[in-house]
Amino acid sequence: MNYDPRPELITAARQFYQQGWMMGTAGNLSAKLPDNSFWITASGKSKGKLTESDFVRVNLDGKVIELPDNNNRPSAETSIHQTIYQCFPNAHACYHVHSVEANLISRCVKGDNLVLPAIEMLKGLGIWEENPNVVMPTFKNHLDVPRIAQEIRDRFSRKPPDVPALLIIDHGVTVWADTTEQAANYLEIAEYLFRYLIAARQVE
Amino acid sequence: MNYDPRPELITAARQFYQQGWMMGTAGNLSAKLPDNSFWITASGKSKGKLTESDFVRVNLDGKVIELPDNNNRPSAETSIHQTIYQCFPNAHACYHVHSVEANLISRCVKGDNLVLPAIEMLKGLGIWEENPNVVMPTFKNHLDVPRIAQEIRDRFSRKPPDVPALLIIDHGVTVWADTTEQAANYLEIAEYLFRYLIAARQVE
Amino acid sequence: MNYDPRPELITAARQFYQQGWMMGTAGNLSAKLPDNSFWITASGKSKGKLTESDFVRVNLDGKVIELPDNNNRPSAETSIHQTIYQCFPNAHACYHVHSVEANLISRCVKGDNLVLPAIEMLKGLGIWEENPNVVMPTFKNHLDVPRIAQEIRDRFSRKPPDVPALLIIDHGVTVWADTTEQAANYLEIAEYLFRYLIAARQVE
Amino acid sequence: MNYDPRPELITAARQFYQQGWMMGTAGNLSAKLPDNSFWITASGKSKGKLTESDFVRVNLDGKVIELPDNNNRPSAETSIHQTIYQCFPNAHACYHVHSVEANLISRCVKGDNLVLPAIEMLKGLGIWEENPNVVMPTFKNHLDVPRIAQEIRDRFSRKPPDVPALLIIDHGVTVWADTTEQAANYLEIAEYLFRYLIAARQVE
Repeated sequence: MNYDPRPELITAARQFYQQGWMMGTAGNLSAKLPDNSFWITASGKSKGKLTESDFVRVNLDGKVIELPDNNNRPSAETSIHQTIYQCFPNAHACYHVHSVEANLISRCVKGDNLVLPAIEMLKGLGIWEENPNVVMPTFKNHLDVPRIAQEIRDRFSRKPPDVPALLIIDHGVTVWADTTEQAANYLEIAEYLFRYLIAARQVE
Repeated sequence: MNYDPRPELITAARQFYQQGWMMGTAGNLSAKLPDNSFWITASGKSKGKLTESDFVRVNLDGKVIELPDNNNRPSAETSIHQTIYQCFPNAHACYHVHSVEANLISRCVKGDNLVLPAIEMLKGLGIWEENPNVVMPTFKNHLDVPRIAQEIRDRFSRKPPDVPALLIIDHGVTVWADTTEQAANYLEIAEYLFRYLIAARQVE
Repeated sequence: MNYDPRPELITAARQFYQQGWMMGTAGNLSAKLPDNSFWITASGKSKGKLTESDFVRVNLDGKVIELPDNNNRPSAETSIHQTIYQCFPNAHACYHVHSVEANLISRCVKGDNLVLPAIEMLKGLGIWEENPNVVMPTFKNHLDVPRIAQEIRDRFSRKPPDVPALLIIDHGVTVWADTTEQAANYLEIAEYLFRYLIAARQVE
Repeated sequence: MNYDPRPELITAARQFYQQGWMMGTAGNLSAKLPDNSFWITASGKSKGKLTESDFVRVNLDGKVIELPDNNNRPSAETSIHQTIYQCFPNAHACYHVHSVEANLISRCVKGDNLVLPAIEMLKGLGIWEENPNVVMPTFKNHLDVPRIAQEIRDRFSRKPPDVPALLIIDHGVTVWADTTEQAANYLEIAEYLFRYLIAARQVE
């Protein structure tokens, strides 16, 4: 158990905070260890200046197994991270942030999928096709977060998504990847697509 | 009297300035001491590079009790800070800034409340409800600032606001909190909501 | 002749560049010395990384009197700075930048004045009135820059402007002030007003 | 072969990344050496933190001649850089990035040229005319990148473009210049023009 992803998560959180994606303590980041437990940001911390004690380590059942600061509790959205790691065993990082654009575009979705624009940047989400027709799954928001997690699990167990990202309405995007670096890249692409879609509606 | 909040206020002002919320010396920040006096930014200082002598300490009646630089005078809006500390005895920090979005959305308000969008980010202002129906109180701007302060006092003594924030029309937002860190978080959420509301109107 | 404003101009240019107001070498900054000569940025330099040799010193007639690098020539717009210093003898700094918003709003002007919004931020340009009715003078752009300068001189000799700023159509804003710090504050307010006016048109 | 442009490319990439023009590993930068080979960014690297081993050196025929890290391969778009260096023998740097605004404006183009606005900033692309009437050539995007390169070569061999820049639809801008510094300046102007054009459509 020597690998500690917290320094990478601290750096990533600061960058996302500076982009305006983690304002006012919003959002949560996690990374998995070889034993399938994962470090996740504690609830209510400003994401621009996390320290290693601002994390909680939980196992895949959501049980806290390491708590550097006893005043902390895991993010309220830990169940979504559990679900992602259970659905995608290769995923080692899961990032959830709340941009203005993600929230706005989520209200424009018809049905339960956001249609992504067929632009070159989709290659960054692993889509190498001419004129790709790809969607990002969207989910209803609930005050009861485990209910969101359950709906994600139900849907992804029936059909895996086109891209490693999902959007909760009024509640931001979640991405996952094999590495923390790849998760950051996916998040940048997802937020780029939201900005593109919102700006496209302003231009029309 | 050992606690000195000025270093935290200097850091906060620089961050808000970099966000574009304190351009051209606009806005003012204060933090209260245990004796109920408070340090407030002096008038006319660039908020990106404050020093400890760019503050004035006043008591709850607005009387100057410490003036590191005799050329300074307290912010023209000190009376609003006094009013906030009088209305909310637990408040220890009060931040007032002028973003473009706050000013624009203030002109769209019908009546004297801004209706806030029912998005997840409202949790950051302490609202934990499904589909919350919450407003931010708005006030008319007057050249005579004590008149603004009086109208705030009158209204909040009748009914406390849903959220720890108020908006003065054409004149930016004011937030307050138990700690400087919490005040910064509230401000980030308030400005996020203004950006959301303005962008939503551009998309419609 | 010990005072050298170049370090302040270098810092200001870097900040304006980072705001997106001096892209691709655009814009020019100057500051006056006690002998009425002034240092102005040389033509064609990236404003994010100026050095002291990237300036030229000229007198009020536009004659070069100090040239740290013989490869340089003064900004193509030196005649506008001369005109400002001649019209406003108290001015010690003159800043000219090209934001997207300034250029866009310049095309919306009817007549030869931009009507400024009556928002609190106008105090930062020295306007302390209830519901102020204030304009910023606008000028036509010409490839022949001395012709722009002449039109500025003609108009300001008839009537001084309401605010220490002017806008050239398709060509950005120019501000002037007693000090470099005040000039930066005025520029921030001017650009804030342009952003406000453009966003207001997007919301309508 | 002592000149190594990679440090300049690393700095440029970090700046463009911070502007949001190289999100999620998008884009590629190259610079030519005296022997007509060029260093180009390797495929799939985050542009905010390149190192010297994140580049590949290829000759004008696209053959890899230096590979500091054997796991790397040249950018998928190397053929476009080859074409630029072949068409414009004086070009020593070629930069390709993907901003939201470039992608959006590319979809608004009628025919195969983007009409540029007649604003002062065009001087930064070498256009010194009163009311210039200038276009930027646009090209269709293809999954098969060498096909894009071929169409660029065909068109530019018939008629050189007005400005040292081209736009691929849904796929961002490419600029070229005699020096890395000039290429950065051209890119800043191009992106400024895209932002201007998009904002102009939002204001209308």
